[in-house]
Amino acid sequence: MNDKKTISGFSSMRKRDKIKWMAKTFFTDPEAVIHELSSYWHSSDEQQKILDGFSENTISNFPMPFGVAPNFLIDDKTYCVPMVIEESSVVAAASAAAKFWMSRGGIHTEVIGTKKLGQVHFLWYKDPEILKSTFAKAKEKMLKESASIEANMKQRGGGILDIELIDLTKSKENYYQLKASFETCDSMGANFINTCLEQFAQSLKNFYAAHFGDNSGIEIIMSILSNYTPECLVKAWVECPIEDLGEFKGGLNAAAFAKRFKDAIDIAEIDPYRAATHNKGIYNGIDAVVLATGNDFRAIEACGHAYAAENGYSSLSHCELKDGNFYFYLEVPLAIGTVGGLTSLHPIAKRSLELLEKPSAKKLMRIIAATGLAQNFAAVRSLVTTGIQEGHMKMHLQNILVQLKATDEEFEKAISHFQDRMVSFAAVREFLSKNRKLISPN
Amino acid sequence: MNDKKTISGFSSMRKRDKIKWMAKTFFTDPEAVIHELSSYWHSSDEQQKILDGFSENTISNFPMPFGVAPNFLIDDKTYCVPMVIEESSVVAAASAAAKFWMSRGGIHTEVIGTKKLGQVHFLWYKDPEILKSTFAKAKEKMLKESASIEANMKQRGGGILDIELIDLTKSKENYYQLKASFETCDSMGANFINTCLEQFAQSLKNFYAAHFGDNSGIEIIMSILSNYTPECLVKAWVECPIEDLGEFKGGLNAAAFAKRFKDAIDIAEIDPYRAATHNKGIYNGIDAVVLATGNDFRAIEACGHAYAAENGYSSLSHCELKDGNFYFYLEVPLAIGTVGGLTSLHPIAKRSLELLEKPSAKKLMRIIAATGLAQNFAAVRSLVTTGIQEGHMKMHLQNILVQLKATDEEFEKAISHFQDRMVSFAAVREFLSKNRKLISPN
Repeated sequence: MNDKKTISGFSSMRKRDKIKWMAKTFFTDPEAVIHELSSYWHSSDEQQKILDGFSENTISNFPMPFGVAPNFLIDDKTYCVPMVIEESSVVAAASAAAKFWMSRGGIHTEVIGTKKLGQVHFLWYKDPEILKSTFAKAKEKMLKESASIEANMKQRGGGILDIELIDLTKSKENYYQLKASFETCDSMGANFINTCLEQFAQSLKNFYAAHFGDNSGIEIIMSILSNYTPECLVKAWVECPIEDLGEFKGGLNAAAFAKRFKDAIDIAEIDPYRAATHNKGIYNGIDAVVLATGNDFRAIEACGHAYAAENGYSSLSHCELKDGNFYFYLEVPLAIGTVGGLTSLHPIAKRSLELLEKPSAKKLMRIIAATGLAQNFAAVRSLVTTGIQEGHMKMHLQNILVQLKATDEEFEKAISHFQDRMVSFAAVREFLSKNRKLISPN
Repeated sequence: MNDKKTISGFSSMRKRDKIKWMAKTFFTDPEAVIHELSSYWHSSDEQQKILDGFSENTISNFPMPFGVAPNFLIDDKTYCVPMVIEESSVVAAASAAAKFWMSRGGIHTEVIGTKKLGQVHFLWYKDPEILKSTFAKAKEKMLKESASIEANMKQRGGGILDIELIDLTKSKENYYQLKASFETCDSMGANFINTCLEQFAQSLKNFYAAHFGDNSGIEIIMSILSNYTPECLVKAWVECPIEDLGEFKGGLNAAAFAKRFKDAIDIAEIDPYRAATHNKGIYNGIDAVVLATGNDFRAIEACGHAYAAENGYSSLSHCELKDGNFYFYLEVPLAIGTVGGLTSLHPIAKRSLELLEKPSAKKLMRIIAATGLAQNFAAVRSLVTTGIQEGHMKMHLQNILVQLKATDEEFEKAISHFQDRMVSFAAVREFLSKNRKLISPN
């Protein structure tokens, strides 16, 4: 163990001291590091303090590109969708697909359900019949004792929907669970659900302690929400007569495009290797809006991929060609919020929600699903026509040229040179340095 | 359709005009919006131009907290791990777990494989026997014609490993695929793989066009990497004698803790509702490092969850108690890079890699897996001892108090008041306003 690189009491050090220790311990140019990290702080100390508070041991802001995709016609209303994503082509693709569908009726959505879930996992050491026959009474106690926690949520139209007892002793000895369902209205509800669950666990434990006279009957393992919420579900779709799809790059007419598009979508249903990347594309769109609105993309991803795995890992979107119609849809579980959490605390997330005209959680589910669908449409359209590299490489090349401070002339030359060559940082640098030599020997 | 909210030619507008249009069209306070968005730009125009280039229609930077978790002893080397995450408690939990294991031998890791994958999906309209009997020749042509694309990667020790022909006609009529495998060394390799695949597709098409005299034999649907890379795999583990685990909050001794911890881990293997949240916790750690180092978290998530779904959706980490030993491990596929993409273009990602002493992709796989394991250990430790809400609520309350500009005195009062109450923005604001009234009637 290299003792010079370990530290005690780090979390209670002042931010500047944290940076200083880190810079001096791990960098060869500590002054430059300190300067660069500080250059990303917000100019207002007060504002920066808020940002710093979102996490721990924060030393700077990591800037993620904040972009917008206009012309999203969703359920007859036009949105300009905020997107936070570090990958090039995603916002361009979403915007292009939105515009394509704007003149074909837009994107349609339907919220199928909003049920959230949580679990109390416990072991039961007595006769299972006692648990089953007394559970109704225990449930009564749990609901009664969580009434005060539930009060505010109830006022907003939500609350605890049900608590079920699930017998899982076939999978693990003595293992039971409470599976509780919730309606959390416009909040994602994690804090509410976890607080309820911890109360359920306490009430359950107390109920059986009173019943048996001691704690020997039941052992609570843990109480925690489930991010897998298959009934918190939204559907988004586009449709139009196949002939209205128009002409495509690569010389495809509408009918040939529709067929090949459907082939690509069907392949993702069949093959998990393709499904993972197909869904990854959908989440390029989804996560960008999730991030922009202060929601939690890890929760969204875990839920969506577990949903995609319900009958062997498969794709989340589907395509049908019937009676001359093109119909493309996405069904995706999305447990998100538009109040609580970071949604109102993060200054740009707050602005994102204002840009979307302060949507309810249900409306935001619709917007996010529509963006995921648009993204998927654009990606698959590229794949079955020109291929994905044409756009990707162009973007990547431009980024590298900006980074290398290329002149306008160099830009042009490089773009023509790399038309049919692999773009990499090293290759572009080499190309520029060769060119620069030709122009000026110094 | 509300025409006022749609726009043509948006992508070619100047950044300031984009912001102006958006602010005036969707906000009631356009001047304040413009001011606020600009306040998040970097003070150097040149630097900001680089950030803007990562995506499209970029109008500002979305600040994500950049924190560090020190004291990570991984394979006998000490790291200070950079983490980008907007969720509170994650960095604190990772740091606490790292410190816990530092004095118990640290975290151990092993890279099991680094194989990347890509696919060319195509339909075959002729006799399948012709495809099978001529494929070796076609493959030769594909490899020959991609030699120049592969040259640089080969120099670095990587390249194309194999191209297999897969018959999937049982799932879909005429459907075959090329499944290609790659070694991409320190790069994630997406551009390299996709460029190779598009070349394979072209060569394949040309080969059979020559064979049949026209294009009627084969139709390429698409060529694209697969994010599902189960053989790009890393393992991380911790172990120690159970008695060395020490005492835990909630009055648990080492043996009772170890048993309950294992119960919690086993439950995540059994129940997909728990598995999703369990894995979500692992990705809290993983994605934070993935983001900090300029890698693509959608790719990492899609791959990891598809891997978790190989035999019905389950958990990625496992625990064994044997011969008085505690053994906890995580196996996770991680296709990441430390060169190329944003790794060297994003100024803070570049610093993150320097902080980790410029690791190879393999070393970064180890560090990321170790962080995921630490995160999972900390979360499950909380769940089976004090519950997750104690820490979460404290963090959440502090954030809200900072936001509401609470004084030190108000901080103390609020923390004691909310000890056993639901924390919400509304509740804290109400508490403060009541208190403020008591102190001063204005």
